Amino acid sequence: MARVRVGVAGYGTIGQRLADGVALQGDMELVGVADLAPTLAIRALKEKGMPYDLYLVDGADRAGFDALGIPVSGTFQDLIGKVDVMLDSSPGGVGAKNKLLYEKAGIKAIFQGGEKNSVADVFFHGYANYEKGVGADYLKLTSCNTTGLIRAVDALDRAAGVSKVAITIIRRVADPGDYHRGLTNALQIDKAPSHQAVDLMTIMPHVEATGILVHTPVTHGHIITVVASGKDGKKITREQALECFEAHPRIRVVSIADGFLGNASFFKYARDLGNPRGDMYEIGLWSDSIVETGNDIMFAINIPQESVTIPETIAGVRAAMKMQLTREEGTRETNKYLGIGKFKK
Amino acid sequence: MARVRVGVAGYGTIGQRLADGVALQGDMELVGVADLAPTLAIRALKEKGMPYDLYLVDGADRAGFDALGIPVSGTFQDLIGKVDVMLDSSPGGVGAKNKLLYEKAGIKAIFQGGEKNSVADVFFHGYANYEKGVGADYLKLTSCNTTGLIRAVDALDRAAGVSKVAITIIRRVADPGDYHRGLTNALQIDKAPSHQAVDLMTIMPHVEATGILVHTPVTHGHIITVVASGKDGKKITREQALECFEAHPRIRVVSIADGFLGNASFFKYARDLGNPRGDMYEIGLWSDSIVETGNDIMFAINIPQESVTIPETIAGVRAAMKMQLTREEGTRETNKYLGIGKFKK
Amino acid sequence: MARVRVGVAGYGTIGQRLADGVALQGDMELVGVADLAPTLAIRALKEKGMPYDLYLVDGADRAGFDALGIPVSGTFQDLIGKVDVMLDSSPGGVGAKNKLLYEKAGIKAIFQGGEKNSVADVFFHGYANYEKGVGADYLKLTSCNTTGLIRAVDALDRAAGVSKVAITIIRRVADPGDYHRGLTNALQIDKAPSHQAVDLMTIMPHVEATGILVHTPVTHGHIITVVASGKDGKKITREQALECFEAHPRIRVVSIADGFLGNASFFKYARDLGNPRGDMYEIGLWSDSIVETGNDIMFAINIPQESVTIPETIAGVRAAMKMQLTREEGTRETNKYLGIGKFKK
Amino acid sequence: MARVRVGVAGYGTIGQRLADGVALQGDMELVGVADLAPTLAIRALKEKGMPYDLYLVDGADRAGFDALGIPVSGTFQDLIGKVDVMLDSSPGGVGAKNKLLYEKAGIKAIFQGGEKNSVADVFFHGYANYEKGVGADYLKLTSCNTTGLIRAVDALDRAAGVSKVAITIIRRVADPGDYHRGLTNALQIDKAPSHQAVDLMTIMPHVEATGILVHTPVTHGHIITVVASGKDGKKITREQALECFEAHPRIRVVSIADGFLGNASFFKYARDLGNPRGDMYEIGLWSDSIVETGNDIMFAINIPQESVTIPETIAGVRAAMKMQLTREEGTRETNKYLGIGKFKK
Repeated sequence: MARVRVGVAGYGTIGQRLADGVALQGDMELVGVADLAPTLAIRALKEKGMPYDLYLVDGADRAGFDALGIPVSGTFQDLIGKVDVMLDSSPGGVGAKNKLLYEKAGIKAIFQGGEKNSVADVFFHGYANYEKGVGADYLKLTSCNTTGLIRAVDALDRAAGVSKVAITIIRRVADPGDYHRGLTNALQIDKAPSHQAVDLMTIMPHVEATGILVHTPVTHGHIITVVASGKDGKKITREQALECFEAHPRIRVVSIADGFLGNASFFKYARDLGNPRGDMYEIGLWSDSIVETGNDIMFAINIPQESVTIPETIAGVRAAMKMQLTREEGTRETNKYLGIGKFKK
Repeated sequence: MARVRVGVAGYGTIGQRLADGVALQGDMELVGVADLAPTLAIRALKEKGMPYDLYLVDGADRAGFDALGIPVSGTFQDLIGKVDVMLDSSPGGVGAKNKLLYEKAGIKAIFQGGEKNSVADVFFHGYANYEKGVGADYLKLTSCNTTGLIRAVDALDRAAGVSKVAITIIRRVADPGDYHRGLTNALQIDKAPSHQAVDLMTIMPHVEATGILVHTPVTHGHIITVVASGKDGKKITREQALECFEAHPRIRVVSIADGFLGNASFFKYARDLGNPRGDMYEIGLWSDSIVETGNDIMFAINIPQESVTIPETIAGVRAAMKMQLTREEGTRETNKYLGIGKFKK
Repeated sequence: MARVRVGVAGYGTIGQRLADGVALQGDMELVGVADLAPTLAIRALKEKGMPYDLYLVDGADRAGFDALGIPVSGTFQDLIGKVDVMLDSSPGGVGAKNKLLYEKAGIKAIFQGGEKNSVADVFFHGYANYEKGVGADYLKLTSCNTTGLIRAVDALDRAAGVSKVAITIIRRVADPGDYHRGLTNALQIDKAPSHQAVDLMTIMPHVEATGILVHTPVTHGHIITVVASGKDGKKITREQALECFEAHPRIRVVSIADGFLGNASFFKYARDLGNPRGDMYEIGLWSDSIVETGNDIMFAINIPQESVTIPETIAGVRAAMKMQLTREEGTRETNKYLGIGKFKK
Repeated sequence: MARVRVGVAGYGTIGQRLADGVALQGDMELVGVADLAPTLAIRALKEKGMPYDLYLVDGADRAGFDALGIPVSGTFQDLIGKVDVMLDSSPGGVGAKNKLLYEKAGIKAIFQGGEKNSVADVFFHGYANYEKGVGADYLKLTSCNTTGLIRAVDALDRAAGVSKVAITIIRRVADPGDYHRGLTNALQIDKAPSHQAVDLMTIMPHVEATGILVHTPVTHGHIITVVASGKDGKKITREQALECFEAHPRIRVVSIADGFLGNASFFKYARDLGNPRGDMYEIGLWSDSIVETGNDIMFAINIPQESVTIPETIAGVRAAMKMQLTREEGTRETNKYLGIGKFKK
């Protein structure tokens, strides 16, 4: 069977990782990536010897790329003509404009969290609503926080039934190397409810969700605390929660006692593992954070914001292209090629 | 009636503010403060012209103080001999040793949050269990986070009845000017449940509490999110919550829309108000953080960690010395002298 | 003699402090302050009982102020009509537009560091070129870093002669409570030479200056290291440097050994002193940072960025209004009213 | 010829990278690494499938390792018996104790920057004094800041002659994932002169050096500004400096205009390059920071603190084991195996 041809629009924090992830899939072909300017990411691509072909979007200064000796394989339109599906990780708003090009060319696309939901037919999460994406032309992924959050809540919901969650998002304010955003010696609060809670309800409409988000001046990993209630007031025990989290291939259950003292520990650990870029696809979950509160259960998770959406996005390709028709198969193939879950006993 | 004579042991972050607070009470006399070394706080005291008399604890280098021209009024033992009650804000563990001196001299004492509960007869909170402290010899105050948290939960409990709370503490890791503690680009999580939740249950035994604490690299104000359940499953509405918070003299209800974007806004506002040291006695509560979650209510508060315990500690003096026998009178007198609540409509 | 009538345009970080400083001058009258929106600073002004009259600039939403119960004394044009000189601390670029109003009304003005030099007749520093400002209509103050830097270099120059300086500015990236700027886990470097070095040469044309600026994620006080060369290769000794710094009323010589461990120590000390807003007018200079390097001298200073320009700006009023004709008199009067230099032996 | 057998004592931040670096050398054999406790680094080693053999130092809890299923190859004494040279990156002070074991076993050792100079025969820098280490039994490497600093100063010295440097070290306070050290919203200054300046004089005795160090709350890369004077007052031009830096294989010359905005840009770039752990062996040097100041030259460098000492340490093995007798050969072989300098045109 011919491999599915995939392009990546926007070679930034997410785009780079999507390209890396697609390149690992044995049944997909990464045709190329498209971007506008010779950013550090593009310069690194060149220094690495151009493992991926580069295409330039409209408005790019071709002469500037030539002067730097960066090989260019064609225009964005050229790339569109060569792929079955585009992973669009352009800056917010650009994806909506690109969609017109995709429609004209008759290709499918998956948009990242920065776009409005209306850009897509399906608001998608690889684990929670895979089947909704099967055969769809335009998907939009949940954002990094929501993707990680839903992984945990979906796991708990399938194991024990969840009717309600109240979340507190302790958000990292910028990615490593980001100078455009920043917060210095301040915690910043957003108007409640947070959009992540609202988004969760869109993906999991049988769950009532609300939450408060506080930005913090760090760069590695959001921490979310979740208070979850069972269905019909049924108690969720600590054991039930722990068991379903430990069984999940994309959840890494750790403990403070083992040395995972906070969000920076996951980044350090991923670097020590030798993972490219020090990335981790799994969310972290502290076993020693799980506590019962009446019939409800409370716990804390860590979201590696740069990489968490990659597997769910690749599952989106599988769903949209009908490569696998069920959640079980789609996530299993994705996990296999990304090496997810091997560390589980 | 003679004014109650008060001493302060330990002229650090809390001790300085206790001294300032006691000095404002018309019915108390600040006899003096005791410390060990010529810290910046002591040097500032000298530069200000010694508004408070200084006594030296055992082990202090008297010659060092003399060389710097810092007037010394006597020994810690001298101070003990002149007061009715000591506010002990010594480093953790020292208070327990000091207690032997207080017992020998027959004076009362109020210990700060760093000491073990066993140092005192009553674990005390000026609003929630004032009556328990009436006439007691040794009180221990709740810590800063717990003090602020209980203010809000106690207010809600008296208005609507609270049976259960699940809290997320987003803790500032060090005070301004503190070089001994610190956290850099990391969020650090503590084993759950947090001691603040456990302490809340000691003060308010009819409430079930649990929670997760995450340290963050900032210096101004803890933020706590609270999910509170009513008694017997009874719903607590947003309006009920907002109303009781707005009625509380030690809770400052603000909104993000007004410019209170996070914890640093409170510090800025207190500085702009001209408050000494930029301190604020009130906790902050964001009206636009209050959301309903099923029958429960969720909201976020800001705890000015350096100053929040001052009014509750001074209320402790009133209780222990039987200056006022009821919570209403004790807190009212404290608020009057500290100027708390004037901003309320 | 009638008091000089002063207005303040822009009640932000600098404007608030200028208003406070002018209000302390026995020979000046603070007529009022002007601003656009009900910021936290304006809300605090109201909560304090309006110690200063408030005027609204064009475009302000008067109804919004009325709804909040904030008394308004008139328009910016009204304020202009009542003053002899305006201290303009509007956002960058606004001052240049305001100047047209000042010219039309025939009043003088002093602009803050954010404006372009061309807005003024004289680029002014209260200590280094006071005489140039005498009788001038429009002055522009040096920025906070440059103001503090020149204080130290001017002191050294008058004592020992300086021909050349190479500076490294370790800049705090945002003020406390500022959510609009920020930097998280990064040091950011500017293209050399820094504007502060260039500005120093404008004020002190006989000195050759260059430097490198690095932004750091903190909010309290810039630290600058200075390598200074004497005239004609003449050696500057550590003793000479220390002596002239200790003699300067606006330089606070401290040591690490005394507890001044970094920039946050000055802020803590100012708070402990009870200074309004925890401000300090003096720059700090670490005696244990002064080292000789060949014939040159190297040292480090701390710049309290929010308040350092206040005395030099008020000296500007004295110069422009010919209240005092010499640097000695102008700075002496300013220091007297602001309480600067009292701590010196 | 038999490969030189190398062990690594202490599998922390430096030890892990030394092991990785040695494993890349075609003429060395990494026999194993030794440590005390199942840290995150050791747990990652296990998850990676034990690419390096693990030996346990005295006091390690062998049963604890067994319980975690971590294979142990023997004791530290066993490892010592199998190697020609030990790279000792134990915590400060431990190396001195280990030396007794090395002496007894008759093996050579290279100690990291945390040990006292007296532990070794030669205080070593791979580029500046390679020949001094040839055949020596015990070397001590310069610390990370000093290693990077000397690279740049040595390059300039060989090209243009340097007589004097005055440095300002803007130090990152902790490594990523380090919770034991930290600084929050503060710059902390050390007593001058900094030890790095003193160390530079030990390695390059013909240069007079002094400097000031300021700790900053970031985790990626020290920035150092250097003011360098030529020999006998001879001018060093911007062109001379730029040329010698661009020619150096371990110096990466970049510009702000290209997107290297600060220290975090280097870390991001190394991650984007796909470098293991996001590490970089080269120091960075901003071309747009180089400015002339009289006859002197000023510039800024970036030191990747976790990895910068690795090549200089491996060069130490080559020197001590007489694998190459000259600086040119020793550094060339090291660079070849580490892939250093390939990006240079």
